[in-house]
Amino acid sequence: MTDTYAIHAEPFYAPQGREVQLYEAAYAARLPVMVKGPTGCGKSRFVEYMAWKLGKPLITVACNEDMTASDLVGRYLLEANGTRWLDGPLTTAARMGAICYLDEIVEARQDTTVVIHPLTDHRRSLPLDKKGELIEAHPDFQLVISYNPGYQSLMKDLKQSTKQRFVAFDMDYPAAELETTIIATETGIDEATAAKLVKVGQAGRNLKGHGLDEGISTRLLVYAASLIRHGVDATDACRMALVRPITDDADIRATLDHAIDNIFA
Amino acid sequence: MTDTYAIHAEPFYAPQGREVQLYEAAYAARLPVMVKGPTGCGKSRFVEYMAWKLGKPLITVACNEDMTASDLVGRYLLEANGTRWLDGPLTTAARMGAICYLDEIVEARQDTTVVIHPLTDHRRSLPLDKKGELIEAHPDFQLVISYNPGYQSLMKDLKQSTKQRFVAFDMDYPAAELETTIIATETGIDEATAAKLVKVGQAGRNLKGHGLDEGISTRLLVYAASLIRHGVDATDACRMALVRPITDDADIRATLDHAIDNIFA
Amino acid sequence: MTDTYAIHAEPFYAPQGREVQLYEAAYAARLPVMVKGPTGCGKSRFVEYMAWKLGKPLITVACNEDMTASDLVGRYLLEANGTRWLDGPLTTAARMGAICYLDEIVEARQDTTVVIHPLTDHRRSLPLDKKGELIEAHPDFQLVISYNPGYQSLMKDLKQSTKQRFVAFDMDYPAAELETTIIATETGIDEATAAKLVKVGQAGRNLKGHGLDEGISTRLLVYAASLIRHGVDATDACRMALVRPITDDADIRATLDHAIDNIFA
Amino acid sequence: MTDTYAIHAEPFYAPQGREVQLYEAAYAARLPVMVKGPTGCGKSRFVEYMAWKLGKPLITVACNEDMTASDLVGRYLLEANGTRWLDGPLTTAARMGAICYLDEIVEARQDTTVVIHPLTDHRRSLPLDKKGELIEAHPDFQLVISYNPGYQSLMKDLKQSTKQRFVAFDMDYPAAELETTIIATETGIDEATAAKLVKVGQAGRNLKGHGLDEGISTRLLVYAASLIRHGVDATDACRMALVRPITDDADIRATLDHAIDNIFA
Amino acid sequence: MTDTYAIHAEPFYAPQGREVQLYEAAYAARLPVMVKGPTGCGKSRFVEYMAWKLGKPLITVACNEDMTASDLVGRYLLEANGTRWLDGPLTTAARMGAICYLDEIVEARQDTTVVIHPLTDHRRSLPLDKKGELIEAHPDFQLVISYNPGYQSLMKDLKQSTKQRFVAFDMDYPAAELETTIIATETGIDEATAAKLVKVGQAGRNLKGHGLDEGISTRLLVYAASLIRHGVDATDACRMALVRPITDDADIRATLDHAIDNIFA
Amino acid sequence: MTDTYAIHAEPFYAPQGREVQLYEAAYAARLPVMVKGPTGCGKSRFVEYMAWKLGKPLITVACNEDMTASDLVGRYLLEANGTRWLDGPLTTAARMGAICYLDEIVEARQDTTVVIHPLTDHRRSLPLDKKGELIEAHPDFQLVISYNPGYQSLMKDLKQSTKQRFVAFDMDYPAAELETTIIATETGIDEATAAKLVKVGQAGRNLKGHGLDEGISTRLLVYAASLIRHGVDATDACRMALVRPITDDADIRATLDHAIDNIFA
Repeated sequence: MTDTYAIHAEPFYAPQGREVQLYEAAYAARLPVMVKGPTGCGKSRFVEYMAWKLGKPLITVACNEDMTASDLVGRYLLEANGTRWLDGPLTTAARMGAICYLDEIVEARQDTTVVIHPLTDHRRSLPLDKKGELIEAHPDFQLVISYNPGYQSLMKDLKQSTKQRFVAFDMDYPAAELETTIIATETGIDEATAAKLVKVGQAGRNLKGHGLDEGISTRLLVYAASLIRHGVDATDACRMALVRPITDDADIRATLDHAIDNIFA
Repeated sequence: MTDTYAIHAEPFYAPQGREVQLYEAAYAARLPVMVKGPTGCGKSRFVEYMAWKLGKPLITVACNEDMTASDLVGRYLLEANGTRWLDGPLTTAARMGAICYLDEIVEARQDTTVVIHPLTDHRRSLPLDKKGELIEAHPDFQLVISYNPGYQSLMKDLKQSTKQRFVAFDMDYPAAELETTIIATETGIDEATAAKLVKVGQAGRNLKGHGLDEGISTRLLVYAASLIRHGVDATDACRMALVRPITDDADIRATLDHAIDNIFA
Repeated sequence: MTDTYAIHAEPFYAPQGREVQLYEAAYAARLPVMVKGPTGCGKSRFVEYMAWKLGKPLITVACNEDMTASDLVGRYLLEANGTRWLDGPLTTAARMGAICYLDEIVEARQDTTVVIHPLTDHRRSLPLDKKGELIEAHPDFQLVISYNPGYQSLMKDLKQSTKQRFVAFDMDYPAAELETTIIATETGIDEATAAKLVKVGQAGRNLKGHGLDEGISTRLLVYAASLIRHGVDATDACRMALVRPITDDADIRATLDHAIDNIFA
Repeated sequence: MTDTYAIHAEPFYAPQGREVQLYEAAYAARLPVMVKGPTGCGKSRFVEYMAWKLGKPLITVACNEDMTASDLVGRYLLEANGTRWLDGPLTTAARMGAICYLDEIVEARQDTTVVIHPLTDHRRSLPLDKKGELIEAHPDFQLVISYNPGYQSLMKDLKQSTKQRFVAFDMDYPAAELETTIIATETGIDEATAAKLVKVGQAGRNLKGHGLDEGISTRLLVYAASLIRHGVDATDACRMALVRPITDDADIRATLDHAIDNIFA
Repeated sequence: MTDTYAIHAEPFYAPQGREVQLYEAAYAARLPVMVKGPTGCGKSRFVEYMAWKLGKPLITVACNEDMTASDLVGRYLLEANGTRWLDGPLTTAARMGAICYLDEIVEARQDTTVVIHPLTDHRRSLPLDKKGELIEAHPDFQLVISYNPGYQSLMKDLKQSTKQRFVAFDMDYPAAELETTIIATETGIDEATAAKLVKVGQAGRNLKGHGLDEGISTRLLVYAASLIRHGVDATDACRMALVRPITDDADIRATLDHAIDNIFA
Repeated sequence: MTDTYAIHAEPFYAPQGREVQLYEAAYAARLPVMVKGPTGCGKSRFVEYMAWKLGKPLITVACNEDMTASDLVGRYLLEANGTRWLDGPLTTAARMGAICYLDEIVEARQDTTVVIHPLTDHRRSLPLDKKGELIEAHPDFQLVISYNPGYQSLMKDLKQSTKQRFVAFDMDYPAAELETTIIATETGIDEATAAKLVKVGQAGRNLKGHGLDEGISTRLLVYAASLIRHGVDATDACRMALVRPITDDADIRATLDHAIDNIFA
C-alpha cells in the first residue's frame, strides 16, 4: 500500500529560495505546513519533490466544495456480509505515515477543514466517530495544505482556528532566468524561445488586477513551449495556450496579442 | 468496449481555418483542449471529427449543474454479492485511452471541474478516492471541454485554476459561403435557397445583444432547410425554425419576420 | 409495451390553422418540436392528436422542479439478486420509437433539460452514463416539449442552447366560433349557451396583465358547461368554474361577476 | 381496503348555503374541486361530510413543504425478496375510486402539485414513472384540494396551470346564528353562552388585518365552550382558548380581554 | 413500554397560579395544549409534573430544524428479513395514550408541524402515509407543545392554522418569594442566600431588551446555588453561572458584576 | 472501552488562575461547562487536564456545520443480519460516565445543539428517538462545550435556551511570564528566546481588531520555538509560523516583520 503512494522518480523541481531547507525543518518538527501561492506556480510540484526528497509516500486530495468529511476520513461500504469500513485518504495517510496533501483547501466545506484539527495540534490523532475508533497518527505523518490567497473572500477563507495550526510557505512564479530554464528543460525548446515565452508571461502577470483575475502560469508557458516543439508557430502557440484560455475580453486579448507579436517579431 | 465509443463513419465537418492542424499538434503534445464558441456553431461536431481523424474513441458527457463528481468518476453499485464498482465515463476514457469530451463544462458543479485537475497537469492521473485507487491515464487519453463565453457570469465561470490547464480554440458560426455549403450538403436543398437562409441567419446574429441573447445557430438553419425539403413553404419554415424557438418578444419577431419576407420575396 | 402507450381512440381535436400539416413535416424530418402557448389552450391535446394521427405511441412526462435526470433516463433498483436497471420514460421512448412529450419543460431542473441534448442534434443518441450504455434512438422517436411563455422569467427560462434544438409551434385559445363548437361538442350543451361562455372567457382574457396572470382557459369553459349540463345555474357555474378558481382579488371578481350577469341576463 | 377509508358515521355539518348541492353537481361531472377559506372554518369537515353523503371513501393527505411526489404516488420498499412497490395515498385513491383530499395544497412543493395534473384533465390518468405503469383513474375517483387565500404570497401560491384545473368553493366562518348552533351542538353548552362566544369570535375577526393575521376560528370557539363545559370560568376559558394561542401582542391581547370581560359581564 | 415513559417520582413543581387546575380541565376535554414562556422558566417541569399528577406516561421530543416528519411518525428500518416499521415517538404516544410533549416546536420544520394537524382536530387520528395505516389516537392521548414567544420572528413562527389548534398557558419566571423557595429546596442552600440570588436574577431580567436577549433563568439561579453549596464563593458562583454564560458584552458584564458585588456585599 | 478514552499521562497544563478549583466544584455539582476563549489559548488542553485530574475518560468531538445529530447520538448500520445500532460519541459518554467535550460547538447545526438539552437539565437523560430508548446518564457523565466569542455573529451564535444550561469559564492567552515558561517547557528552547517570542505574540495580539481577526495563539508561538529548536533562524521561524499563516495583508505583514526584526535584533 505504501508503495502505491511512493514517489519513485525524482520530480523536476528548481528551488526558488531556501524553501527546501525550511520544509525539512518543518517536517523534522512534524509541523503542519500551508503552501500559499497563485495557480500553476508549482505548489503541487514542490510538495511532490519534498515527499520524494524525504522518502515519504504522498497522498494528494483535490478539495472541492462538495467533498464531505467522509470523503477524507472514510465510510462504511455495504457488502454481502454486511458493512465494511473503507479508510479515506486522510486516514490512510495517518495510518501509514504518509504526507497528506490537501490541494486547494479553501474550496472544501468546513466539515472537511474541522476534521483535520485533532491531527494538527498536540494530539496528532484522528477520531473516526462513525467507527468509534481513535487513530494515533504514525510518527512520519504530516499534513500539508495549499491555499491560493487570490481566491480569498469573505465566503471562502480558512477560519483563524484552522490557519493557526500551520506554518506557511509563500510561493510565487519563478524569477525570469529560473523560469526560462524550467521551460527549456521540461519541453526541450531552445533557451532563446523560452526566454521570449517568459516575457509574454510577465506581460500577462502585469495585467493581473487590471482586467485579468490571475497571471499567466508557468504551466501555460510550458504548454505554449510544448506546442512550439510540436511544430506550431510561436505566435499561434502563444495565442492558443496563453491568451484564449484565460480571457474572453477583447481589449485584454488585443493587448496580449500585440505583446506576443512584438516579442516574437 | 473501445468499439462502443469508436467513430465509424467520417462525420461531415467543413474546417473554418487551421483548427484541424492545431488540434493535431495539441493532441500530439497530449495537451488538454478547451473549445469555445456560441451554441450550435459546431463545437461538438469538430471534436467528433477530430476523434475520427485521429482514430481514437470518443466519450461525450453533457454536463449539468446537478452532475456530481461520482457521475464522472464512478461509484459503487449494490449487488447480490455486495458492492461492485462501476467506472464513470471519465475513468473509462482514462483507462482505454479515449478522448473524453465534457460538453458545456461551465454548467457543472465545482466538484466535477476539480476532479479533472490531476488529469490535466504533469501527473496525468485520476485518484479514485472512494476506491483507494490511483489511475495512470492511458498514453492516448485526452481531455476536451467546451465552453460558451456568452454564458459567462460571476456565478457561472470556470476558475482560473481550471482554465489554466487547457489550450483553447475559438470557434464561431462559419463564414457565409461555407455555411451555405454546409446547409446544402446536409439537407440536399439547392444552394440558392441555402444562401437565403444564411442571410436570415446573419440578420438574426446582428440582433445578438440587441434583444436576442444568442444568434441563430447553424443547426437551426439546417432545421429550416430540412422543413423546406419536406415541402414546407420557405417563410413558414423560417418562422417555425428560426424565429419562434428563440424569442417571444413581439418586436424582435416582427423584425425577423420582415427580414424573412424580404429575403424570400 | 408499445401498446401501453398507443392512442387507441381518435382524440377530439379541432385544428386552429395549418398546425397539423406543419407538424407532419416536422415529424417527417424527425425534428424536435416545441409547442408554446398559455395554460389550458390545448397543447397536450394537440400532441395526443398528432400521435394518434401518425400512429405512434406517446409517452407523456409532467415536468416539475424536483424531477431529476434519473427520473427521465432511468435508475438502478435494488432487488434480491442485486440491482436491476429500470428505463425511465425518455429511454423507453427512445428505444421503442415513441413520441416523448415533456409537458411544461421550463419547470424542470437544468439537468433534465441538458439530458435531452444528444437526442436533439445529429447524434440522436442518449448516453446512460450510470449504465455505461449509449442508446441510438429508434428511427420513429421524436421529442416534443411544451412551454408557456407567460411563465418566462430570468429564473425559469430555457437556455438558448436548449431552445436552438427545436422547431416551434405557437398556440393560443381557439377563435370564438371554434371554441363554441369545442365546448358544445365536448359537453353536449347547446351552441347558444356555449357561445355565452366563450364571451365570458374573452372578458377574462382581456384582463390578462390587468390583474389576472393568465386568461380563462378553454378547459375551464368546458368545466362550466359541464356543471350547467348537470343542472347548475349558468351564473353559478361560471362563478364556480371561471372566477373563484383563478383569482381572490375582490375587484377582479366583481368585474367578472358583473360580466357574467350581463352575458346571461 | 375501501372500508379503511369509508366514513361510517354522519359527520356533523351545518351547511352555510347551497354548497352541498353544488358539490353534488361537481361530483356528478367528476370535476376536480378546490375548497377555499380561512383556517378552522370547516373545510375539512365539509369534504368529510360530502364523502359520507356520496357514500365514497375519503383519503386525506396533510400537505407540507417537505412532502415529495413519491409521498403521494408511491415508492419502492426494500424487502427480503427485493423491492416491493407501495402505492401512495393518491394512487390508492385513484385505484379504488375514493375522494382524495389534499389539505393545504399550497404548502406542498411543486412536484406534488404537478403530479396531479394528468388526473385533473380529460386524461384522468396517473403515470407511475418509476414503475412504468399508467393508471386509469376509477370512475368514482375525485380530487379535492383545500387552499387558504390568506397565505397566498408570491412564494406560496398555486400556479395558474394548476388552478385552472378545478372548480372552486368559497367558504367562510358560519353566520352568527349557525355558529351558535354548531358550538352548542358540539359541546353541549347552553345557547346563551354559545352566542356570547360567537360575539367574542366576531370581535377577533374584526381585528384581522389590524394586528391579527387570521380571525378566531370556529374550532377555537368550540375549544372555549369545551373548557367551560369542564368547569372552567368563561373568561378564563376565552383567554386560554381564544386569545393566548393566537397572539403575543400586548395591545391586541388587552383589546380582546376587554371585549371578553364586557361580553361575559 | 408504557412503563418506560411513566413518571415514577413526583417532580418538584411549585405552582405559580391556577395552571394545574386549568391544565386538568384541558386534559379532561382532551384539548391540545401550548405552553408559552421564556427559556428555563419551568415549562418542561410543569408538563412533567402534570403527567405525573394525571398518571399518564410522557414522551418528550426536543424539536430542531433538521428533524423530519419521519423522526416523529416513524420509518422503515432495513433488516435481514426485509424492512420493519419503527414507530416514531408521536406514533408511540398516540397508540399507548401518552402525553406527547414537543419541546420548542417553533424550531421544527413545517412538515413536522403539519403532521400533528389530524391529531389536533375532531379526527384525533394520525395517518401513516408511508405505511398505509390510519391510527385512531388512544382516548388518553394528548399533545402538548412549548413555545418561546421571545424567538418569534417572521421566519420562525407557527402558522395560524397550527396555533388555532391549541389552548395556551402563559408561563413566566416565578415570583420572588416562590423562586427563593424553589432554589433553597432544590439545592439545600439557606433562604437568605437564595433570596440574594433571586435579586441578581431580577437585575438580569430588567436588562432583557436592553442588551440581553433573554433574562437570567431560574435554572441558572439553581446552578449558582449549587456551586455555592459545593464551596464556591457566592460572587464567583454568580459570575460563572449567571453572567459569563449569557453575554460577552463588556458593559453588560460590568453592570451585572457590579449588581452581584452590591447584593452579596 | 473506558480505557480507550482514558488520559494516561498528565497533560502539561499551567493554570492561569483558579480555574482548576472552580472546575472541580462544577464537576462535583455535575454542572454542564462552557469554556470560552480565543483560538489556540489552551481550551482543549484545559479540558484534557481536568479529565486527567478527575480520573475520568474524555471523549472529544470537533463540531462542524455538516455534523448531524446522528453523528453525536448514533445510527443504525446495515449488517448481514439486519441493522445494528452504533452509539455515537455523546451516547457512549453518557453510558460510560465520560466527560464529553464538544469542541467549537457554535459551528454545529441546531439539531446537534438541541440534542444535548435533556442531558443538561434536571433530567440528565438522552432520548434515542430512532431506537425508542431513553438513556439515563451515568452519574459521572459531564458535558463540556467550547466557544469562541470572536466568531459570534447573528448567524453563528448559541441560542439562549442552550447557553442557559451551562456555567462558563473565560480563558485567554496566558500572561507573559507564564507563556514564556510554557514555550520553553514544551520545546526546550531557552527562556530568553521564549520571552522574545512572547513579545512577538503580544505585538500580534495588539493588532487584533486593527487588521487581524484573531491574535497570534500560544500554539503558533510553540511552532516558532519548535522551528528554532530544529535549527531555523529565529526571524525566519517567526515569519513562517507567526506571520505568513495568519495574514496576506502586505501592511500587516510589514508591521509584524518589523517588530520581529526589532525584537530579535
